[in-house]
Amino acid sequence: MSSRKLRLGAFFSMPGNHLGGWRHPDAVPNANTDFATYLHLAQVAERGLYDTIFFRDTAAVAGADAMHAGDRSRARLARLVALEPVMALAGMASVTRNIGLIATATTTYNEPYNLARRFATLDHMSNGRAGWNLVTSQFEDEAANFGFSQHPDHASRYARAEEFYDVVAGLWDSWEPDAFLYDKKEGMYFDFDRMHFLEHKGAHFDVRGPLNLPRTPQGRPVVAQAGSSGPGMDLAARTADLVFTAQLEIPEARAFYIALKDRMARYGRAPDELLILPGLTPIVGRTMAEAQAKYDELQDLMPDDVALNSLARLSGGLDLTKFPLDGPLPDLPPTNSGKSRQQLAIDLARRNNMTLRQIARHMASAAGHRVLVGTPTSIADEMQAWLDADAADGFNIICNHYPVPFEEFTTMVIPELQRRGIFRTAYEGRTLRENLGLRVPVNRYVAAKARS
Amino acid sequence: MSSRKLRLGAFFSMPGNHLGGWRHPDAVPNANTDFATYLHLAQVAERGLYDTIFFRDTAAVAGADAMHAGDRSRARLARLVALEPVMALAGMASVTRNIGLIATATTTYNEPYNLARRFATLDHMSNGRAGWNLVTSQFEDEAANFGFSQHPDHASRYARAEEFYDVVAGLWDSWEPDAFLYDKKEGMYFDFDRMHFLEHKGAHFDVRGPLNLPRTPQGRPVVAQAGSSGPGMDLAARTADLVFTAQLEIPEARAFYIALKDRMARYGRAPDELLILPGLTPIVGRTMAEAQAKYDELQDLMPDDVALNSLARLSGGLDLTKFPLDGPLPDLPPTNSGKSRQQLAIDLARRNNMTLRQIARHMASAAGHRVLVGTPTSIADEMQAWLDADAADGFNIICNHYPVPFEEFTTMVIPELQRRGIFRTAYEGRTLRENLGLRVPVNRYVAAKARS
Repeated sequence: MSSRKLRLGAFFSMPGNHLGGWRHPDAVPNANTDFATYLHLAQVAERGLYDTIFFRDTAAVAGADAMHAGDRSRARLARLVALEPVMALAGMASVTRNIGLIATATTTYNEPYNLARRFATLDHMSNGRAGWNLVTSQFEDEAANFGFSQHPDHASRYARAEEFYDVVAGLWDSWEPDAFLYDKKEGMYFDFDRMHFLEHKGAHFDVRGPLNLPRTPQGRPVVAQAGSSGPGMDLAARTADLVFTAQLEIPEARAFYIALKDRMARYGRAPDELLILPGLTPIVGRTMAEAQAKYDELQDLMPDDVALNSLARLSGGLDLTKFPLDGPLPDLPPTNSGKSRQQLAIDLARRNNMTLRQIARHMASAAGHRVLVGTPTSIADEMQAWLDADAADGFNIICNHYPVPFEEFTTMVIPELQRRGIFRTAYEGRTLRENLGLRVPVNRYVAAKARS
Repeated sequence: MSSRKLRLGAFFSMPGNHLGGWRHPDAVPNANTDFATYLHLAQVAERGLYDTIFFRDTAAVAGADAMHAGDRSRARLARLVALEPVMALAGMASVTRNIGLIATATTTYNEPYNLARRFATLDHMSNGRAGWNLVTSQFEDEAANFGFSQHPDHASRYARAEEFYDVVAGLWDSWEPDAFLYDKKEGMYFDFDRMHFLEHKGAHFDVRGPLNLPRTPQGRPVVAQAGSSGPGMDLAARTADLVFTAQLEIPEARAFYIALKDRMARYGRAPDELLILPGLTPIVGRTMAEAQAKYDELQDLMPDDVALNSLARLSGGLDLTKFPLDGPLPDLPPTNSGKSRQQLAIDLARRNNMTLRQIARHMASAAGHRVLVGTPTSIADEMQAWLDADAADGFNIICNHYPVPFEEFTTMVIPELQRRGIFRTAYEGRTLRENLGLRVPVNRYVAAKARS
């Protein structure tokens, strides 16, 4: 019997994380731009008591570089347009009460002052439920929308991300918790001595502050990260409250979990200040046969060329269409985007002797995340095993299309997790930090005054 | 009898446009950061059938430069923090159905790709009710948050704004209206030939596109502007659907109205493709005496030093505290921010022989906008006179504090306008363009195909 509970994220990858998912008869194929579907999913997620909603983000049409070079086959792919996710979360804030609201925003093509404002605004609008998934840009398609021919290199992107975080976290501390007085009688709106200029001057940014928003309801928004490379793990160990990751088997997931939590000591942090949620794509059936049939139906919706495209960004520039589909995965040159995801694909293919077609179809079906085909019982068994093995603190649930598979997981698997006592039956608190069991950060200026 | 109807904007200047407004017993002093108040005001505005909600924006704490230099008197001012307004509108989109949603965003410290996405997202989320108030940054306080010691000069800001608009409008045309096929059977998600790369290469921006959102429900978001300087009027004549302006008397308002509409011909546009809405601050009483008492009560809430601060950004660097309050307004050096607003204050003071105290208190009470103290009948008379004189197409209603004065104008004055047949009794359409009577722009690529 587990002594702790799973954390669950609802990772909305509309119109479907499976590259053929949008073609399923149940799929809403424009779920990525239809806000009514977003609101429906948010309400299903909140009724299901998920800790948080989560959105990825790309500041470009996915595949734009390839299409610009003439690749018309991309017109078969769906996951290339979407509502800007921080805006979508703002819309969801009005019609939800408890669930967390986390979205990705890149440190590569934003200004820290603007980004700090938007997430602080979301925290105020939602009464303390906002989260920022801090990333460096991976998809090269973005660069041309911001005046660059390609991204800065991996090390430069991480150096900028480290400083970007410091600026944003610093701006979030601009005002002490009780800085605003609203004293109508004396005509004093705020306490001048509880407002602070950041005065940041660094290699990438020169930002004075203060932020033009009061301290937020949960102290500051939750910070999530997804990088699993060395620099990514360092940044997460220093700054993240949550880590979203792709892990396929318990041993490797446990190794990552321990390595990341061990690394936190370098930054003076305790292991329980960070939660690790691998992605999980469930395919739920009342019987194993039904679940397997659902998986087979989906795989039939994905042509080989679509599957091969899913490997293109990990190929390090190698044109994979020149290799036989039934031959082995060729040696891949190093990539400037998604280093750890490339390694995951190579390891998986080598370990299982997979052909190019097999590894491409596998990666296309879940973007490298764990796919669990099974019954509510078998899926709950596996989730519990990961929790008991300290391979995860929970999972980020990603569906092949929307909304039906998400509704199925929520109504069929979550009750089984609750019966086992490894998932909540009511929200514990009001803010995302309270529900995740995370501490409220102390304002740096309050801390300095307490020390002096 | 007027043959046309007034357009009304609800300009939410929380916690109050009057610098002492937040101290009023009825005022919600944290209305600028309390999202529940925002939602309440949005619902009052929609019940009142306003064309649109409107928010200003400053990417800084207002007065930060002065406070950084040690001016502690600013702690008496309220309008210095606020929710990021595009996010606030996204939250309002979920709980409104008809009203327009317009917010300011600067071209000086944003990236056009990011901004085009956010407003296109808002248009999708609201089913065609979004608008962008395009500005160049005025308040010098912003510069230090983006790595600059001061703004680029006025001409450079406008050159960037012109190009910024072209990039944003171009990105909004990335996809033809019927580009997305969602053809599950054939597995074709979109029509490759109806997707377009912008390929913009200019002095300030190099943006390839396409935008990662389909064409929006009203073709593209409505574009508003507020600049009244020469370059500001040129930009508006070329690009704006709506102009927000500050005008005090019918003759000058009519001159501005005619000059701006005449200038549109230079850009091949008809006068009815742009609507002009001066700001209007109503102080409504059941009798004139009651209205005047309300005005006096408000003015008593504003100390002289607070009033003087409201002129500080228009002073061109001159320290106004060195001049006698009961002497004349001294000659002001040229300013790099708010050129037309500075001229308005100078003209007003000279024309009426106002002392420094008087002009400061006047500007502080409405930031240069027309203040109408009166009964529903007298206020409706004046609004109708402006409409009949072609001095305005309507007004942007700005209140001294929130929510009571806004509720009063909505429930007391709007019915009087409706009785006179100069304001709608139901929304005419579904989108903001439909309600404003503006045409849906034709996609440039569709137009080119039609011509060829």
